[in-house]
Amino acid sequence: MDFLTRQRRLQAALSGNRLDALLVTHLPNLQYLCGFTGSAGALWITPDSCVFFSDSRYTEQASEEVQGARVVIQRKALLPSIAGWVVRKQRGAKRPVIGLEGEHISWAASQRFAKALAGKYKLRAAPPLVEQARLIKDKDEIEAIRRSVELGASLFDDALPHLRPGVSEVEVASILESGARRAGAEGMSFETIVASGARSALPHGRATEACIASGGFVVCDFGVILHGYCSDRTRTVWVGPVTAEARQVYQAVLEAQAAAMAEVGPGVSVGAVDRAARNVLKKQGLDKHFTHSTGHGVGLEVHEAPRVAAGLKDRLEPGMVITIEPGVYLTGQWGVRIEDMVLVTEKGCEVLSPGIKDFTAI
Amino acid sequence: MDFLTRQRRLQAALSGNRLDALLVTHLPNLQYLCGFTGSAGALWITPDSCVFFSDSRYTEQASEEVQGARVVIQRKALLPSIAGWVVRKQRGAKRPVIGLEGEHISWAASQRFAKALAGKYKLRAAPPLVEQARLIKDKDEIEAIRRSVELGASLFDDALPHLRPGVSEVEVASILESGARRAGAEGMSFETIVASGARSALPHGRATEACIASGGFVVCDFGVILHGYCSDRTRTVWVGPVTAEARQVYQAVLEAQAAAMAEVGPGVSVGAVDRAARNVLKKQGLDKHFTHSTGHGVGLEVHEAPRVAAGLKDRLEPGMVITIEPGVYLTGQWGVRIEDMVLVTEKGCEVLSPGIKDFTAI
Repeated sequence: MDFLTRQRRLQAALSGNRLDALLVTHLPNLQYLCGFTGSAGALWITPDSCVFFSDSRYTEQASEEVQGARVVIQRKALLPSIAGWVVRKQRGAKRPVIGLEGEHISWAASQRFAKALAGKYKLRAAPPLVEQARLIKDKDEIEAIRRSVELGASLFDDALPHLRPGVSEVEVASILESGARRAGAEGMSFETIVASGARSALPHGRATEACIASGGFVVCDFGVILHGYCSDRTRTVWVGPVTAEARQVYQAVLEAQAAAMAEVGPGVSVGAVDRAARNVLKKQGLDKHFTHSTGHGVGLEVHEAPRVAAGLKDRLEPGMVITIEPGVYLTGQWGVRIEDMVLVTEKGCEVLSPGIKDFTAI
Repeated sequence: MDFLTRQRRLQAALSGNRLDALLVTHLPNLQYLCGFTGSAGALWITPDSCVFFSDSRYTEQASEEVQGARVVIQRKALLPSIAGWVVRKQRGAKRPVIGLEGEHISWAASQRFAKALAGKYKLRAAPPLVEQARLIKDKDEIEAIRRSVELGASLFDDALPHLRPGVSEVEVASILESGARRAGAEGMSFETIVASGARSALPHGRATEACIASGGFVVCDFGVILHGYCSDRTRTVWVGPVTAEARQVYQAVLEAQAAAMAEVGPGVSVGAVDRAARNVLKKQGLDKHFTHSTGHGVGLEVHEAPRVAAGLKDRLEPGMVITIEPGVYLTGQWGVRIEDMVLVTEKGCEVLSPGIKDFTAI
């Protein structure tokens, strides 16, 4: 990953945002900017310096991982120590402006930090500058996302033969998760959803000890984290004798997904993509059962910008990676969701998640 | 779980903290107060009402899980919708004080919420009232923690025969994790640490594809989440021909842990517990290699109050559950950590993690 370029770009953006320094504390942003993957750290960025802070648990790991920044290990609580460090640095009469990551730092921590600055600096909730940079994935990131998505897809293929009536949801989840581990994934990108029977009508029905029964859908929504990057994909399969309604609803969701994907392209608003999916379902009277938004960005985090939701006007750009995941949920009966990750290209989009998704009954 | 009692206690604490209402958004606090286990929600508490808010993904789940509060499902973004709801409720000239959870809500979210209140309320970063209540575990919680700890311990016993030279760290992690799943755990309480060879000297060495080699320790630090409650326990085993130094350092860590446990009791400061462990290591010149604190509280979160660290004056009370986890890390060589969870009792403490921890070589 080209950490130096990312740091230089952020440094160049500081003055335009009226910041003399930015203190980055959000862990995925730290990983993006300097490669650190531990659970506590902060990157102090000014137009001409980058200093990385962590605590003594991470002395070795920080010196191995962090690129482009001097590493300072603090013996005491991180944020107060950093405040002390910056106060000692400040000798002039001017009060430079420090930005904190307003969307991530807690209100109380920002208050404590402000107090510890002892009037030597002004403090501001900075706009999400790093998240804005992360919207457009660079070549290395796209490659990492591809590998993550391909692993996720192959894990599903391996688990499918085990998905049978009488097998519990957690049994299926466990097959997916241990496969991910053995393939070198750091972990799952969110709590694995294996939702069968009436539970498939819960959009977030994480795996339980319930056994898969004949006569319903099973929604499998999961992702892996591989070399820091997330995958997210949903496949839904029918168990038992097929009904016409099941096939029809599945087909409608598949068409809604295809319509949304066809809409994706540079300059298109995310709201238009959402509308394309919703319109297909509306024609079949199913739109009221599509109770969530159509998608979200994926990268170092499994849910990141942009949101792909009704009415939002953000424009897609080449290099963005988003999910397209319409669903129909018939409460008490069953639900269907089909989700793939797509890369926005110059001409439209490329579907990153391989594998067929025709109606499948087992 | 006795959600109503917890809500009543919090309601009774509002006026003493000069709050007319508290908006709880931290997910473990929501689970503690009303049973909700989803990923987005908020509980509005006044001295005489509890209203739970979530979004349309959680319509069914909220109505199944939430106890003691009316459920309101919002179609739009949660916090702005709640701000609108409370503004519509407020008709008098007085400006009631709303508390937000200062340690959890982001600085930017608090600013947006304040703005959306349109001057009809005062907003304050409330002290961690729910965390304070959660410090002392009630009978149901202690029972849940016992089960979680027992599952974690039995998973380690099952995995131990697989821990052999040539097996990768992630292979061992995968055995622990799939065992947890099959036993009904919702997940792991943190990223599983299986750190072998020189990596055992990293206090947070999560499992990698590295193969376990003869002539070093393997640190296995992991926990499960079972019915919402976390476990956390570390066992360290030697692989290959035993050296005198390995045995001596292991014994020192074990004695440090025993000394800290002997110190635990009502009214004892957490700093004294930390010091008891550190003093044992000091006698052997090993204290400079004990680079982290001695422990932390465990419950709905794997790291919660109280911290058990040098110099802290918080007093232990019966019903608190903490870890005691001294370690010695010889950089570039290997490390040892031994961790158990203990329940503070009227007379001292009860070690919750079963199983032997004598020096073990394989």
